[in-house]
Amino acid sequence: MKPMGALPPEFLLQSGAFRIGGETADDWASQAGDTPLFVYDMAIVAARIARFRAAMPAIDLHYAIKANPHADLLTAIAPLVDGLDVASAGELAKALIVKPPASISFAGPGKRDDELAAAITAGATLNVESEGEAARAFAIGDRLGLTPRMAVRVNPDIELRGSGMRMGGRASPFGVDAVRAAALVTAIVAAGADWRGFHIYAGSQALDPGAIVETQAATIALAARLANEVGAAPPLVNLGGGFGVPYFAGDVALDVERVGDALAQALASRPAILRDTRFAIELGRWLVAEAGVYLTRVVDIKQSQGETFVVVDGGLNHQLAASGNFGTVVRRNYPIAVAARIGQAATDTVSVVGPLCTPLDRLGDKVALPPVAVGDLIAIFMAGAYGASASPSAFLGHPPAIEIVTRG
Amino acid sequence: MKPMGALPPEFLLQSGAFRIGGETADDWASQAGDTPLFVYDMAIVAARIARFRAAMPAIDLHYAIKANPHADLLTAIAPLVDGLDVASAGELAKALIVKPPASISFAGPGKRDDELAAAITAGATLNVESEGEAARAFAIGDRLGLTPRMAVRVNPDIELRGSGMRMGGRASPFGVDAVRAAALVTAIVAAGADWRGFHIYAGSQALDPGAIVETQAATIALAARLANEVGAAPPLVNLGGGFGVPYFAGDVALDVERVGDALAQALASRPAILRDTRFAIELGRWLVAEAGVYLTRVVDIKQSQGETFVVVDGGLNHQLAASGNFGTVVRRNYPIAVAARIGQAATDTVSVVGPLCTPLDRLGDKVALPPVAVGDLIAIFMAGAYGASASPSAFLGHPPAIEIVTRG
Repeated sequence: MKPMGALPPEFLLQSGAFRIGGETADDWASQAGDTPLFVYDMAIVAARIARFRAAMPAIDLHYAIKANPHADLLTAIAPLVDGLDVASAGELAKALIVKPPASISFAGPGKRDDELAAAITAGATLNVESEGEAARAFAIGDRLGLTPRMAVRVNPDIELRGSGMRMGGRASPFGVDAVRAAALVTAIVAAGADWRGFHIYAGSQALDPGAIVETQAATIALAARLANEVGAAPPLVNLGGGFGVPYFAGDVALDVERVGDALAQALASRPAILRDTRFAIELGRWLVAEAGVYLTRVVDIKQSQGETFVVVDGGLNHQLAASGNFGTVVRRNYPIAVAARIGQAATDTVSVVGPLCTPLDRLGDKVALPPVAVGDLIAIFMAGAYGASASPSAFLGHPPAIEIVTRG
Repeated sequence: MKPMGALPPEFLLQSGAFRIGGETADDWASQAGDTPLFVYDMAIVAARIARFRAAMPAIDLHYAIKANPHADLLTAIAPLVDGLDVASAGELAKALIVKPPASISFAGPGKRDDELAAAITAGATLNVESEGEAARAFAIGDRLGLTPRMAVRVNPDIELRGSGMRMGGRASPFGVDAVRAAALVTAIVAAGADWRGFHIYAGSQALDPGAIVETQAATIALAARLANEVGAAPPLVNLGGGFGVPYFAGDVALDVERVGDALAQALASRPAILRDTRFAIELGRWLVAEAGVYLTRVVDIKQSQGETFVVVDGGLNHQLAASGNFGTVVRRNYPIAVAARIGQAATDTVSVVGPLCTPLDRLGDKVALPPVAVGDLIAIFMAGAYGASASPSAFLGHPPAIEIVTRG
């Protein structure tokens, strides 16, 4: 038996039996008309946003839509956040449907000319990632007769300790090195752009509040240092995100209130040049991961050399990350359950595998579950972020997963 | 500087300058109208098939379409092979367009009832993976008034040494354990199915001919043992595949002729019960990987902390495997080149990164390349298998890659 992550407490608190947005897994599968499906519980997303607001009342909240760009979810989230962060022209088009351009910012190390033109035309803010990109954006703005809105993305000389993906403190394709950032801002302002501030992102998927507190304080100090170099206050500093979620056994959920208290203190004593600056935190995973459940039906149960395999109709084609094949070195089990028997004692050690003809397609490796039968629904939790949109859905020719957002 | 795999010799042999199917990378990008794109050189695929035929004239050749299900490629390959192996109802539908049902077999550990029904209705062969699946298939056949064609997939008590993915010799979701296979065949025959034989697949991506020779000999012995237990000769034994291709520095291409010679010897002395049995080898990757080139354009070149990043418009959303995030534990570099300067001396050490906002999106890590400029096309080789269809194309909202098959 191998450990699995803990089921999100939000679901265990829902009225005894396991329900998503008040309905059972069977109800959702019936409504969908087929399996596999993702159900995103909008009430959980809204509760996360409310918790953030209470913990960090003075901070703008941005949603990084790459975590989950499902149109219905985006429509539901947009009114609850201050901004949307996008990473392609495709994401920009989705964001513009639900949010005004002034609250949309576009980061990404390889923006093409057509993407820059789309953002400038729309009036979204470009988080400029290099001197070369700034030059291209100006040329495009001139051609279009439009003034680009630009923030400068900085590759900070800070790393987020303990983060799942470090994006600062080292050579990086993201942003311009801190030592060159002030010069780039000066050039941008001189060229007549509408300078919106700094975007400073040091890492993601951190569960240690101390590491986030430390990084945020260093980020504020860096922003102040750069502002002083420029001799102008940034309208906005995007502090990045990095709030992790507990996927695996032993993971402890992030103490966001502790982060909020420390951030309030850091801002209370911030350097004078940032006095009128707004601060934003950009979150994707932390807002939506726990709200999502992937439901897949048991097609077969088979024995092989003393092990039991529960074969389900969904797999890494929909949930690559849960199979351990996306950004993790060691495969570990996401929380997984027999939907109709959550809370019952585990009786069997089984591996839950998908329908693909590859040994990579394993959603649960030697997990302890209650009795399971063909036709049961298996629930894989923590499926709301980097699931459907971050998986190779065409691989082996199965249909895409159905996605449903609860009314919240 | 880190090593990269060797460029496939097929391209180096094409007339001095780098061409794919006789045309330059720029020609292909112009024809596509945009980047990134995959170009599949059908002449190289045809040459691989011819090489297989020469090396193993008595063996049926099946194409495992999961390696690359692009419709034009499938149409071109189908007349050149004896069978198509599919792994979903979606792949079955594609195969039926280009090949008669009797030459199509359907493997996969989680076939749903609707998939079984589609295969039985079409008259394709089901590679049955469990006793439970056989029972479901019979019930569906009865309901439809049709006799299922069935082979039995066996989980062999053999593993393919040195294979990239071991699929035998251990507890497995694939097939029935060898100790139960004869009983399942007996039951299938008793129930009136059209028994087509055995499907025995021990692993994939092996480069050591000795390991493949050994596995094939053991597979033939296993098939004979099972046939004797059943008391009937299998019409076909699918020996699996497992022929690897050289992705990385130090990899040596498989000596297929040596495999063919040994297989011919093994078959010459095969047990009497297999005298009239046909044998098939099922290949995906080996037929198409080297034929594919992924072409992506340089959007930006930037310096960070002393390192150079070449930012291109394609990334892991199209070529997950090349980013090291699919089935490999340690990230290593695929062969990569500046398309217009292949054969020129390397002058710079650069990292080639895609446009996605994640540090995972790295196509070349500290590779040595000739001078590279914004607007250049970068070629990533070994892109014909498990590329476009095995990557998370929706991730971050960029368009899918264009795919082109040369006339061959």
